[in-house]
Amino acid sequence: MVVRVGVVGAGIMGADHARTVQRFVSGAEVTLLADPDLARATAAADAVGCRAVDDPFALVAAGEVDAVVVASPDATHPALVRACVEAGKPVLCEKPLSPTLDDSAALVRDLGERTSLVSLGFMRRFDPGYTDLRATLAAGAIGTPVTVHSTGRGVSSGPGATSESAVTNSAVHDLDIVAWLLGSPIVEVSWNAPRRTAAADFADPQLILLRTEDGVLSTVDLFLNARYGYDVRCEVVGENGTASLREPARLEVDSSLTRGLAYAADWRPRFADAYRLELQAWVDGLGGGDTGPLATAYDGLVASAVADAVITSMHGDGAWTRVEVPAVGGAS
Amino acid sequence: MVVRVGVVGAGIMGADHARTVQRFVSGAEVTLLADPDLARATAAADAVGCRAVDDPFALVAAGEVDAVVVASPDATHPALVRACVEAGKPVLCEKPLSPTLDDSAALVRDLGERTSLVSLGFMRRFDPGYTDLRATLAAGAIGTPVTVHSTGRGVSSGPGATSESAVTNSAVHDLDIVAWLLGSPIVEVSWNAPRRTAAADFADPQLILLRTEDGVLSTVDLFLNARYGYDVRCEVVGENGTASLREPARLEVDSSLTRGLAYAADWRPRFADAYRLELQAWVDGLGGGDTGPLATAYDGLVASAVADAVITSMHGDGAWTRVEVPAVGGAS
Amino acid sequence: MVVRVGVVGAGIMGADHARTVQRFVSGAEVTLLADPDLARATAAADAVGCRAVDDPFALVAAGEVDAVVVASPDATHPALVRACVEAGKPVLCEKPLSPTLDDSAALVRDLGERTSLVSLGFMRRFDPGYTDLRATLAAGAIGTPVTVHSTGRGVSSGPGATSESAVTNSAVHDLDIVAWLLGSPIVEVSWNAPRRTAAADFADPQLILLRTEDGVLSTVDLFLNARYGYDVRCEVVGENGTASLREPARLEVDSSLTRGLAYAADWRPRFADAYRLELQAWVDGLGGGDTGPLATAYDGLVASAVADAVITSMHGDGAWTRVEVPAVGGAS
Amino acid sequence: MVVRVGVVGAGIMGADHARTVQRFVSGAEVTLLADPDLARATAAADAVGCRAVDDPFALVAAGEVDAVVVASPDATHPALVRACVEAGKPVLCEKPLSPTLDDSAALVRDLGERTSLVSLGFMRRFDPGYTDLRATLAAGAIGTPVTVHSTGRGVSSGPGATSESAVTNSAVHDLDIVAWLLGSPIVEVSWNAPRRTAAADFADPQLILLRTEDGVLSTVDLFLNARYGYDVRCEVVGENGTASLREPARLEVDSSLTRGLAYAADWRPRFADAYRLELQAWVDGLGGGDTGPLATAYDGLVASAVADAVITSMHGDGAWTRVEVPAVGGAS
Repeated sequence: MVVRVGVVGAGIMGADHARTVQRFVSGAEVTLLADPDLARATAAADAVGCRAVDDPFALVAAGEVDAVVVASPDATHPALVRACVEAGKPVLCEKPLSPTLDDSAALVRDLGERTSLVSLGFMRRFDPGYTDLRATLAAGAIGTPVTVHSTGRGVSSGPGATSESAVTNSAVHDLDIVAWLLGSPIVEVSWNAPRRTAAADFADPQLILLRTEDGVLSTVDLFLNARYGYDVRCEVVGENGTASLREPARLEVDSSLTRGLAYAADWRPRFADAYRLELQAWVDGLGGGDTGPLATAYDGLVASAVADAVITSMHGDGAWTRVEVPAVGGAS
Repeated sequence: MVVRVGVVGAGIMGADHARTVQRFVSGAEVTLLADPDLARATAAADAVGCRAVDDPFALVAAGEVDAVVVASPDATHPALVRACVEAGKPVLCEKPLSPTLDDSAALVRDLGERTSLVSLGFMRRFDPGYTDLRATLAAGAIGTPVTVHSTGRGVSSGPGATSESAVTNSAVHDLDIVAWLLGSPIVEVSWNAPRRTAAADFADPQLILLRTEDGVLSTVDLFLNARYGYDVRCEVVGENGTASLREPARLEVDSSLTRGLAYAADWRPRFADAYRLELQAWVDGLGGGDTGPLATAYDGLVASAVADAVITSMHGDGAWTRVEVPAVGGAS
Repeated sequence: MVVRVGVVGAGIMGADHARTVQRFVSGAEVTLLADPDLARATAAADAVGCRAVDDPFALVAAGEVDAVVVASPDATHPALVRACVEAGKPVLCEKPLSPTLDDSAALVRDLGERTSLVSLGFMRRFDPGYTDLRATLAAGAIGTPVTVHSTGRGVSSGPGATSESAVTNSAVHDLDIVAWLLGSPIVEVSWNAPRRTAAADFADPQLILLRTEDGVLSTVDLFLNARYGYDVRCEVVGENGTASLREPARLEVDSSLTRGLAYAADWRPRFADAYRLELQAWVDGLGGGDTGPLATAYDGLVASAVADAVITSMHGDGAWTRVEVPAVGGAS
Repeated sequence: MVVRVGVVGAGIMGADHARTVQRFVSGAEVTLLADPDLARATAAADAVGCRAVDDPFALVAAGEVDAVVVASPDATHPALVRACVEAGKPVLCEKPLSPTLDDSAALVRDLGERTSLVSLGFMRRFDPGYTDLRATLAAGAIGTPVTVHSTGRGVSSGPGATSESAVTNSAVHDLDIVAWLLGSPIVEVSWNAPRRTAAADFADPQLILLRTEDGVLSTVDLFLNARYGYDVRCEVVGENGTASLREPARLEVDSSLTRGLAYAADWRPRFADAYRLELQAWVDGLGGGDTGPLATAYDGLVASAVADAVITSMHGDGAWTRVEVPAVGGAS
């Protein structure tokens, strides 16, 4: 049986997800694509050979859609997820669950047991580098972890980025993955920043410190306007050794007195495999198969709570701030 | 529509292909698996949830099979390919087309126009590293190529390996990929070898020189019992620069005074992506889609002719030997 | 004219300096070596073919000594430096100038203009990697710096190490080099640490944050019992790019499924060139030549002041702490 | 006692040697510099603070010169070496001993026992990478060697380069170092080449195969007009592993979507340490100390014999050619 997937959002992310599902995921096909900008929706739909609509909620309701991928702007996530759940349709929502902790908490609380229909797009958990890293930690190859250095840099921030959205939209990946790698929740955070780069009108770069329950201290070096390339790094230092993601360039090209490896300009080539494997696991799960490390709505809520603590620290002179995950009944 | 695939061979390669098609290829499912060793066939079939038989020709004939993957021992390839074609079923045959040039030529000659049903498993053409390398050459990033260094090393050779089978079964990958990268056929070869390693009872390592029609001189460093790891390298040197595949480890692990990257023990992790993309392209092509750089039976014949010339040189003191591709009518 | 050098201290560092001066520095020879442990002094002296004494102050006074290298325990530095200056002899003192800020300040204040006789062993300034890095920044290759990540890890801490000595004896290298690379003094610091490693009975690792006057935020990741190797890293992130020291292994050795680069077990191989070039520059300067980036006593005082602020933060819950460099008259 | 060194040749190599001896070699000073181009000689002499003459033979005879470094054009080597020996002065001659085998043989034969005064500038033997590599082989880390890949590439060839001079002047480094690494003489060679690069009017690149007495097969990939950078590589493949020189860049600079390491434009930065250590060992030896792996005149003769065999193969369709080292009496 082939799962019929509807994709909400025809921006870079949505178009990419539609193409990945259609071309590279076993057991699924894209049947509908929605975007308020119908021209954009149609272009993306034509690329995969499906129909387009301009109303995301119509997509959720459509009979030809068994399950939904939400890749629309962050602020639209809660309402769309709610609609999917109310229609009884499984949904894979891009991170974050919501830009605010209150909305994330309300969503999870309201949905109750039905949150099991919701998965969240923390795709790094499927990146072969991160999964190898986690397995290496589990195998004890470097001993008990003591520090983690997580680095996320991009060429330039999108329009409308703020000091806060840099946390809720970008650093949120680091906030999820550090806890996932360590298998320990983040309990305390502190926000710091140097003089901002001339390319940004908000705090960029940022340096966030995290304490996890296991006593590990982590740094998150976030720099959205780093210009030189899309560059995600992670090092876990243990009591007996250290393990790091390696820059994933496949080719070395030497010319003009330089030995060069190419950086990607954005996240798509870097995480193409992670997105593919995430979508495959989600589809597998819809048929009763194994979903692997697929994130849940509750994982999204926890990440929102950490992001909220980071923003509190940002507005409070960088003071160490406790993470408080709101109670949401039995949903966790 | 989902293509129903039958897989012949339940060894490492066949079991791996079955799993890849079933789990990671869009638009296909495995419906039957054949191996004379029925227990092995059944184990592999159970792993993907399909039926097993012990007669490969019964698989070819089975109504539940639309297309066939042949991953049985080299010597069985020609008869199985012939049976598939006679049954009108598309077949993806693992390399080589046949261990001998005569059999390869007879097969292509006999099949005539129906050879279009046959694809050959030169999966390196789908490896993202090699495709990036080819694109880099095409973009002129290093100027006109002058030399290529292709290195293929493994931990240990399989049972029954000989000086000749090292060429027809292993070096054949290099023979295909060098010509494919350069877009120029190999016209002359020379075979050389050092003192053999203590681990082998045949000529291992081997050093093969290739001249392509474009005047490029290439080296193939083949070492099947290199012990240290499965290691495939390729460098193309051009008039303005040089481009090389980068060792693909995703993780660096530092411990015990060593900064280490892991080698795979065999080809599967190294070329998992290449096999997946090759199988996907083959399945796409069955539905009328683009097959990308998928190799044809004629490509297999050409590689057999080059391998044959290498073996002639091996038996003739390493003398430079012309490659003669047999005429096969209109089939090329 | 050949400068006759006396070396105080016959431990690892002193013996190494004696050997370097004798064998690899142009224009100098070692004439006397002093250590309270006369057997140790004699062994080191024999290795370079000079005389040994057990009284460092006798060495300072000896007629056969034109200039002195001090490589004895940290606490002995101020008295020895003072003796050299009073004898009118140039002295190159290993870092730190003194373990306490008060003593460093008193020394510089008391010596007044004669502090020009004192150089300090911040050898990283002579490491070809760091000098290339500084030149790269100066050339604008990465734009204006925004963050620095300085990492110092060793296999195991020496006997008697404490949370504080880790700062004054080890991190002091980072405190000097970060300011030197940026050309901007450190004005504020914050100390943090994860759960300590099982191998230490003091705070190890430590994570120190530094703010320099230019607005750059730096991290110092110090881990004296990291076990896996001696590993010093530095990355400077700028507005247009990032520049990093590369691990300096000269050889890759691949065996047993691992592609390996060797780490040094201690600092000597890593900084052999830096020590040689530092000693050469010091000797050159004694003859009126260029001393390059050789650190002064005042640089040592500044580093002591920063270390003192770090320790204040350590004892004060990690609060951001201002660096106060004591006034020392015209000596700066 | 300080050895007074005269340097013949004020080109790039001679000026560099003069500077190295003067600034970085313990126990030596440059007292005289000779070049037929007196202006050039004077400029180089001024840079190190010594006197200049235009007659190299006057330098050899000068009372202020204890020992001589010959860094003049290849063809002048034999006469200058002969003059030094006749004056009873030790000489370090840049490679080759002579451009022709006959002249090399006549020189060694004529000098007889006095050849012990002659050292030859195969500086790679002092490069820390190569010495580490040799030590790694000796330690058995990769088992018995089976193949070696030696790569020598430069940005552009000097004026007047020919297919033959590429061998006698450049590949001669590889011819010496391969035998030195393996501890086994080269007994047979074969010369090959692709279509030449558009940048050269002689055979460039060249691919030379070498057989050593121990049965190892080596490749020398020589490309003088490779344009992209000065790039020397070496890999030794053994029965249990493989060991390679690592590109020696000290800094990684990432910008404009490229992660870059700089290549040197010529050999000086790459081998600065090797030249320094070679000159130091030569000076040490003059005082009775250890000369380490310093090459002798006989090593130079052997390299000339191998180069001669390569050129014979070049002129003979690449046929495998035996190396014949002329008998020179007891001098070897």
